[in-house]
Amino acid sequence: MTRPPEQVHPGVWKFTLGVPEQITPVSSRHYPPAADGLRKLGTLHATPVTPEGVPSKRGFLVRLPLAPGEIVYGLGLQLQSFIQRGLNKKLRVNADPRIDSGDSHAPVPFYVTTQGYGVLVDTARYATFYCGSTRHVGEPPSTAGAANPDGPTAGDLPAVFRERGMGEKGEILVEIPEAGGVDVYVFGGPTMRAAVQRYNLFSGGGALPPRWGLGMWYRCDGRFNQQEVLKMGADLRAHRIPCDVLGLEPGWQSHAYSCTFVWSAKFPNPGELVRQLGASQYKVNLWEHAYTNPASPLYDQLKSHSGDFAVWGGLAPDFLQPEARQLFGDFHDREHVSLGVSGYKLDECDNSDFTGSWSFPELSKFPSGADGEQMHSMLGQRYADAIQIAFNRHKTRTYGLVRSSGALAAPYPYALYSDLYDHAEFVKGVAKIGFCGLLWTPEVRDAETDVELIRRLQSVVLSPLALINAWYIKNPPWMQIHADANNAGQLDPNWQWIESACRTVMELRMQLVPYLHAAFVRYHREGLPPFRALVMDYPQDSRTWTIDDQFLVGESLLVAPVIGSALEREVYLPEGEWYHYWSGQHYAGKQSVKVAAPIEQIPLFVKSGTLLPLAQPTLHTADPASYRLTARAYGAGSSAASVYEDDGTSPAVLTEVRLSWDAASKSGSVKRDGPVRGPQYEVVDWKTIG
Amino acid sequence: MTRPPEQVHPGVWKFTLGVPEQITPVSSRHYPPAADGLRKLGTLHATPVTPEGVPSKRGFLVRLPLAPGEIVYGLGLQLQSFIQRGLNKKLRVNADPRIDSGDSHAPVPFYVTTQGYGVLVDTARYATFYCGSTRHVGEPPSTAGAANPDGPTAGDLPAVFRERGMGEKGEILVEIPEAGGVDVYVFGGPTMRAAVQRYNLFSGGGALPPRWGLGMWYRCDGRFNQQEVLKMGADLRAHRIPCDVLGLEPGWQSHAYSCTFVWSAKFPNPGELVRQLGASQYKVNLWEHAYTNPASPLYDQLKSHSGDFAVWGGLAPDFLQPEARQLFGDFHDREHVSLGVSGYKLDECDNSDFTGSWSFPELSKFPSGADGEQMHSMLGQRYADAIQIAFNRHKTRTYGLVRSSGALAAPYPYALYSDLYDHAEFVKGVAKIGFCGLLWTPEVRDAETDVELIRRLQSVVLSPLALINAWYIKNPPWMQIHADANNAGQLDPNWQWIESACRTVMELRMQLVPYLHAAFVRYHREGLPPFRALVMDYPQDSRTWTIDDQFLVGESLLVAPVIGSALEREVYLPEGEWYHYWSGQHYAGKQSVKVAAPIEQIPLFVKSGTLLPLAQPTLHTADPASYRLTARAYGAGSSAASVYEDDGTSPAVLTEVRLSWDAASKSGSVKRDGPVRGPQYEVVDWKTIG
Repeated sequence: MTRPPEQVHPGVWKFTLGVPEQITPVSSRHYPPAADGLRKLGTLHATPVTPEGVPSKRGFLVRLPLAPGEIVYGLGLQLQSFIQRGLNKKLRVNADPRIDSGDSHAPVPFYVTTQGYGVLVDTARYATFYCGSTRHVGEPPSTAGAANPDGPTAGDLPAVFRERGMGEKGEILVEIPEAGGVDVYVFGGPTMRAAVQRYNLFSGGGALPPRWGLGMWYRCDGRFNQQEVLKMGADLRAHRIPCDVLGLEPGWQSHAYSCTFVWSAKFPNPGELVRQLGASQYKVNLWEHAYTNPASPLYDQLKSHSGDFAVWGGLAPDFLQPEARQLFGDFHDREHVSLGVSGYKLDECDNSDFTGSWSFPELSKFPSGADGEQMHSMLGQRYADAIQIAFNRHKTRTYGLVRSSGALAAPYPYALYSDLYDHAEFVKGVAKIGFCGLLWTPEVRDAETDVELIRRLQSVVLSPLALINAWYIKNPPWMQIHADANNAGQLDPNWQWIESACRTVMELRMQLVPYLHAAFVRYHREGLPPFRALVMDYPQDSRTWTIDDQFLVGESLLVAPVIGSALEREVYLPEGEWYHYWSGQHYAGKQSVKVAAPIEQIPLFVKSGTLLPLAQPTLHTADPASYRLTARAYGAGSSAASVYEDDGTSPAVLTEVRLSWDAASKSGSVKRDGPVRGPQYEVVDWKTIG
Repeated sequence: MTRPPEQVHPGVWKFTLGVPEQITPVSSRHYPPAADGLRKLGTLHATPVTPEGVPSKRGFLVRLPLAPGEIVYGLGLQLQSFIQRGLNKKLRVNADPRIDSGDSHAPVPFYVTTQGYGVLVDTARYATFYCGSTRHVGEPPSTAGAANPDGPTAGDLPAVFRERGMGEKGEILVEIPEAGGVDVYVFGGPTMRAAVQRYNLFSGGGALPPRWGLGMWYRCDGRFNQQEVLKMGADLRAHRIPCDVLGLEPGWQSHAYSCTFVWSAKFPNPGELVRQLGASQYKVNLWEHAYTNPASPLYDQLKSHSGDFAVWGGLAPDFLQPEARQLFGDFHDREHVSLGVSGYKLDECDNSDFTGSWSFPELSKFPSGADGEQMHSMLGQRYADAIQIAFNRHKTRTYGLVRSSGALAAPYPYALYSDLYDHAEFVKGVAKIGFCGLLWTPEVRDAETDVELIRRLQSVVLSPLALINAWYIKNPPWMQIHADANNAGQLDPNWQWIESACRTVMELRMQLVPYLHAAFVRYHREGLPPFRALVMDYPQDSRTWTIDDQFLVGESLLVAPVIGSALEREVYLPEGEWYHYWSGQHYAGKQSVKVAAPIEQIPLFVKSGTLLPLAQPTLHTADPASYRLTARAYGAGSSAASVYEDDGTSPAVLTEVRLSWDAASKSGSVKRDGPVRGPQYEVVDWKTIG
């Protein structure tokens, strides 16, 4: 069955097994591979793994070998499990993914392994991945034949790995319903990190949010009218709460379930609203979903480009058809983006079908030829493609939220979010997204205690999108964490202290904007995820393999969020030298340390050799003070860092600003590589730590 | 596509749509339809509903109309939802069914509606039922055309029904993967209750547990050895705790994951164990699962009759093959049943595949031609079929536990159970099983509080199998509800009071054994479920449609378990006159009443016109005192009841004993219809209530 593989890019092999389906993530892609970036990663000589295709009565089967000790990560936003080896996952889009069966807002048929390669199974079907969990009758466990002599071997593995059979030879079985074949893409390394980079570059390169997207976000009460939204904007400024983006929830539309995409009577002058908020340096983000109400001006034209089943009485647009995307994009441009709206929250695109039929059935038919199952797997991205038409026309970048994603997601400037709310799972989400080209926000809503609110806020400010989602409370959560009391206007007697603590947390985010932005530039150009698990950078260190409650941000920061009410926690520091962000205390790596975590401090560590650029904390990223940097040099040696001036266009025009600290002369320098436009970074202070 | 339907039994129509698969629940059935019972229910002239088959690229589609106001129940043990209309369910066997998506220990492709008919879709596939939740684009909501003029109409429906579109015309779509066709069986009524009876009789008639099966069950700590089990048996008797069945957990086997089915060294003389326990009137029940360890004497012979994938290194027997069943049945006979073992707990047959591959993959191949998906759907029953060979040989009946079931389950003498433990869901399970030919035990394990323990025990003694499952605690839960303390031997200071309260609860069960047994006789002969939702008996009363926290037991009892710490609750009493079991207080029906529920009393009501036979509470059902009855006549009129003397054989030989209360003469009479064998019922006291 296996034809000779084709090396479609350096280090990227395509295996065509059987006769693939017409409609797949790759065949429907909108972003071309980032060929330059792939070329720069260099060529590899041989494919690290060879998939085998087996036709089956039940669809199509792909077999891939696993070596003893080989650990598997990925498959999307699987919030209940980190390591995938030893588990089975049916990759089904589901809005309520509360069991570890593969249901997910963002199931992704891509995995990476500690042997340093990645595999994309190019299907929009609900494929089942049996990740080394199966063994044929009579097949004895075998620990022979580790594929990569540098990889971990059975002897290195702790007991938990043996329990799941990870110390033995195995295989991944992928069962794809309906299909008569599939293309499998293999991404070489030689490291897991490089394999992920190749996958992200093959996807089109990572998204680069506009600089404002990395500030703080606040979604207003969905019941607010135009005046109340303006007042919330003014209040946040008056209280010195950092905020770049205000989000409007369903109430802005004349009809929301299904959607008209038309402003409601509560918003009599939306252009003026956007203008006034813009004058206070707020961007406006609009909630919506794709299901189009009969009262929408879009309805009649969209009808012939939609699925055969209605959702909340509305159309399910066939975004695989250019006509549907164009109609949708044009309308959104005219009614919102042309007014200055900066982006969207694309809700309900994740098959809430079991919540009481809040979606189209899998047996739906779309004019493009897709059925409902295929459409569910690709809706989040095809929906974003339609919206993108509006932003492309204005040559401006967007950043937003989406509740569904899948394969090849890296270039999409959207963070996933969820109605689930377990803090530990939310943190695991941040640790996991780097395996699969996803972005995710562990958004803050309410909290059981003040302490929990602050701890959740600390997690979200160290995530791709720093969102406070107050869609059901009138006052910010720090004024009253309990929704009922909040809406009744009963403020916490202690609210000023809580607000102050939260402000301090948000100021950390604002200080890190230049650093985060630079990490996203690497995501865009090199495919390196800005947020990733420790095992991505330290795969040789077996202590990192299971760590899903810490993660790396960019090249230099290690974050260890605190869950619950603890005031200290264990943190594992991998090899190298580390400095405590808050105290500057030095720690040798390759050890677990217990660190104090006073309520205002999230445990945060800086790698030795880092030059960390910290902005002055501002209320928004348009404040020129946010370009004034303190550069902290960690460790005794020289160090360097780049930050980028960004004009916000699409594609971005960037000016690299290179900061260097010379240890010998104890002096810093700044070099600008590009045209001078808009505000410029300057270093107002150089500091050395350690 | 639709061929003319065939009336295969009176009131049962078979529609063959397309070309059905070879392996289905009906084609694999072991119990023939109970033709006599079906005949007695009488003929009907026309099919109440006509399914339409539509071939599809994705498998096969069945469409069935729904009238405005028609409410749908069933689809198996769906613990998170009662009414199925408006929901979507993918009927997948799953050991961890924590979301309401159709995953279940016992998904059943059978539903009934308030229009008074039932539908069985004869498939072993994971079919998706869209229960009136879909609407095509442009299809307006319509309330025209209620199919049954006696049925509820849109105007009767409360708001919640309108929210799910139940007041409108709709349809059920059933998508069956893989298949090119399917047989659909329609069961006429004219009532929902009669439709369920037809379904159960078509399945083979309901199971009739041996009388001892209706006593109390206690599963011992899995770590116990032979002596410790004997001591537990002695302790229960010494503490006057009713118990008929002692269960042994995995430790009795020489290897349990996978199973050898061979006694471990901890049980050096199992024949003596069973004999000694039998001398104390205990039956012995053995835990096991089907996956057969290489060390089992069964392994070599079973190998060629097993699936291609191993589970815990063991074989997955192909119980669709007579050879596998025979080998299995013979071995169980020789090693256990011939020693006197009374039955089994058939664990792990419910596809724990997402728990870390504790099962075979859906793509498995079995020698019978079944794949893993089909085998999962039918494993619980085919496994029981294999075991049944042993009991048939001894012409004795069994009663046991099974963790998976499906279509046509009524004749199987096995109660379902679950690792889930939500008390409200567990009670809902009892209310739901009557729709689908299932039995279920809301087993008691540990508890958060003493009160919760007692409330849970009250629920389980009014269920099909009264099980205390102490598999992980050394002492009974009433001595210490917390597992760690229990195992450390730290008894609750208050344990004697708790034990006494629990004993009182268990004595209620023992008093009800003759009544329960008679209800099971009706299940066996007439297909009438002994436990059922109120809506089954009172479909014209819209107040009953949503009630899932009360249920009927037999013809005369209404149970309203208390969840949590309340000492009173609201109970809805349907039409008729009712009496409070404990106080004898009279209540008019068709009203909701708030009743006191002191901790020892589960709210329990008796229908007026009932003659309720109550046994003397005994420690086990073999005690002759358990045949001495107090007959309580409720209401002013004459009344009658039957109880049955049962010789425990297969099939049962029953002697009907008819009790009558004559209101005019204020005297009771007892007539025995059958041979005199073994202990005989006698009425030692006649009482009148009301």
